[in-house]
Amino acid sequence: MRRIDWNALGADERAAVLRRPAQAVSDTLRAGVRAIFEAVVARGDEALRDYTAQFDGVSLDDFEVGAEELEAAAAQVPANVQAAILEAAARIEAFHRAGITQPYEVETAPGLLCQRVQRPINRVGLYVPAGSAPLPSTALMLCIPARLAGCAEIILCTPPRADGSADPAVLLAARQAPGVRVFKLGGAQAIAAMALGTASVPRCDKLFGPGNAWVDEAKRQAAQRPGGIAIDMPAGPSEVLVIADAGANAAFVAADLLSQAEHGPDSQVLLLTDSAALLDKVAAEVDVQLARLPRADIARRALEASRLVLVRDIGQAIAISDAYAPEHLILALREPRAWLARIHNAGSIFLGDWTPEALGDYCSGSNHVLPTGGAARAWSGLSVAGFQKAITVQEASRIGIASAGPCAATLAHAEGLQAHARAVELRLEQAA
Amino acid sequence: MRRIDWNALGADERAAVLRRPAQAVSDTLRAGVRAIFEAVVARGDEALRDYTAQFDGVSLDDFEVGAEELEAAAAQVPANVQAAILEAAARIEAFHRAGITQPYEVETAPGLLCQRVQRPINRVGLYVPAGSAPLPSTALMLCIPARLAGCAEIILCTPPRADGSADPAVLLAARQAPGVRVFKLGGAQAIAAMALGTASVPRCDKLFGPGNAWVDEAKRQAAQRPGGIAIDMPAGPSEVLVIADAGANAAFVAADLLSQAEHGPDSQVLLLTDSAALLDKVAAEVDVQLARLPRADIARRALEASRLVLVRDIGQAIAISDAYAPEHLILALREPRAWLARIHNAGSIFLGDWTPEALGDYCSGSNHVLPTGGAARAWSGLSVAGFQKAITVQEASRIGIASAGPCAATLAHAEGLQAHARAVELRLEQAA
Ligand SMILES: [Zn+2]
Ligand SMILES: [Zn+2]
Repeated sequence: MRRIDWNALGADERAAVLRRPAQAVSDTLRAGVRAIFEAVVARGDEALRDYTAQFDGVSLDDFEVGAEELEAAAAQVPANVQAAILEAAARIEAFHRAGITQPYEVETAPGLLCQRVQRPINRVGLYVPAGSAPLPSTALMLCIPARLAGCAEIILCTPPRADGSADPAVLLAARQAPGVRVFKLGGAQAIAAMALGTASVPRCDKLFGPGNAWVDEAKRQAAQRPGGIAIDMPAGPSEVLVIADAGANAAFVAADLLSQAEHGPDSQVLLLTDSAALLDKVAAEVDVQLARLPRADIARRALEASRLVLVRDIGQAIAISDAYAPEHLILALREPRAWLARIHNAGSIFLGDWTPEALGDYCSGSNHVLPTGGAARAWSGLSVAGFQKAITVQEASRIGIASAGPCAATLAHAEGLQAHARAVELRLEQAA
Repeated sequence: MRRIDWNALGADERAAVLRRPAQAVSDTLRAGVRAIFEAVVARGDEALRDYTAQFDGVSLDDFEVGAEELEAAAAQVPANVQAAILEAAARIEAFHRAGITQPYEVETAPGLLCQRVQRPINRVGLYVPAGSAPLPSTALMLCIPARLAGCAEIILCTPPRADGSADPAVLLAARQAPGVRVFKLGGAQAIAAMALGTASVPRCDKLFGPGNAWVDEAKRQAAQRPGGIAIDMPAGPSEVLVIADAGANAAFVAADLLSQAEHGPDSQVLLLTDSAALLDKVAAEVDVQLARLPRADIARRALEASRLVLVRDIGQAIAISDAYAPEHLILALREPRAWLARIHNAGSIFLGDWTPEALGDYCSGSNHVLPTGGAARAWSGLSVAGFQKAITVQEASRIGIASAGPCAATLAHAEGLQAHARAVELRLEQAA
């Protein structure tokens, strides 16, 4: 792991430390995704069948998981995992329920009421990647807010297993949204199917969920098309930034760095500390713990690009973190809450020694679909609000148009829009 | 204007009636925008100067409006327009203040607190088009929510006038966000400047505001770039759909259709009514009022593509409207509020005879930056929330990790992520 003394660096070197490895979307990948979209436009389900055979090695006549497979899922999931899925679901629901966007109204002038009301997005498309293992937790993170928002149709795509079945734990989690329709489709072809619609997969109004570079590029291209679909946020490799002080537990910090590193070889891992002693201890602990990990080879590759950074003080660490805008930020500090107000850019924050990132990944209740790659500067993590949209409503009485109308007419004239002014003035004449 | 009897149409014809004219982004336009981005990357301000000379016919050394020009603006705006700007601003502020997103928190397990807190987006880029006339109202609609959100830096671009100055009414409106920095830049080059940053224009975190096809394509391309900027929503031609019953005032309805039509030749105008008599009266009124309009030629072109549709009943009209998902929806009905719950897809709704769309354009208090082109199926109109982002926060005590940790560890093992499980288990061992 690279050790860096922040205050020995010049501005360019500092920028280089915070630079994420360019997620250079290759021309090949971009063209590949474009070809998939064109094929799905031209040949619909037939194209989906071809890609599924090519990429997933499975020949499927029917992509949709039938009622039987859906109901049989529970029996195939070990009891302790079933219980954990239900426990996590309850906590995710409790937290997300508090985030259902509420309507509001203001009487902005006598006789003029303005409101903002919410509606569920009608048909949402959820993508649950399989990664190196099935991810029932992602199904929970997408299905529960979709259900709480009241979305009428919930479509979920997840890659088929080698035997053509869907992962039963993912199915069990998906059933947190009763009525969900699950399709065994993965990668860019799943995104293209939900964005364009085919004979078997309905065209969705918005797409959600993480994925690899192909999925991310497919979501971008789907959004880019004229009349394109909405997407939750750009996706990218997962990241953690840990800020630790001298009092932090080096074994915990090392375990958090490693749990991020095992996500994939492109995972981003940063430690900022004002204690050289802690930095040494963490480095040593990482070596010890790494040796025991089944996914050590993946983690080792991610750690090659990781950085252990010595800073002057915690205030400097907070400033560096804000410039980086990490997806996950762990504050392994003695008074973590005291720093919260100074943090502007982060997806999700984990306070103190006893809150590992893994808790947020699974069952603290917060959503694990979070902005990566610095997107936390402008994007929020997923919540029920992402599955809703708002409509503004205004209603003027005769009194209302009399009170607010003249202002509108004046501005319409100033903007050279006489028909606008006329629509107001006609009413003012008759309201009087 | 085309008259249509909805119930005499087959499914294909119905779909054709609701189809918006393809906003076919030509390859020329797309390549033109791409060339602008490349030039701004390569030559920064120099490229901006060239494009401003080419597209706006003005040679500018310095794009930024100085303190002097900003302060002198008020004196150049007629007193009644100044008063109207302030009156509209007060109403917009009153309504938008109610939409500031609030934090929430839930104790999801003993000793485990989850929160969602808001932060302003740091540096926002606002685009105020000039159109056929300057649009101070758009400056209000962008600057007021940006200020209420607490954005630290507010950058506003608007095209220069022929004499190289900025429109004083736009400047006066922009001052609703104290500290705003205004740049005299228009079109795709303004978007490229704010998305990429140049020596004079700061790189922004998110872009807002309407614009023509060039601006829309530039926003899309800005969002599409790797590590791309966030944008408020896709932009497109403005639209109104009016649902009127037999009791509606034909002159009011005609005035509303015309005020939409004068926006531009590509404006979308639809009337749905269950009264053939009203339909006839509106058609006649449109002819009468059109003759008097200064922008009659623009309105006439928009009306060529407009549709007057006879429906069976108001319920059918509501269903058609929901399928179309209009930017503006006027309910010229006797009991407009009774239909509200049935409407799922619309940007902004205007209830009853006394609420012209023009009121929402200027000063009802609601935002006039709204989803067009059917985007209302998944997007909301602009609000303070668009200038904020949220961070989730979780804090577990020893008790908290003991209560929620085992669930996380079980799911981590199920997903094959042993380092995640280890980060939890290490803490469980020590918390005990
Ligand atoms: Zn993780
Ligand atoms: Zn208008």
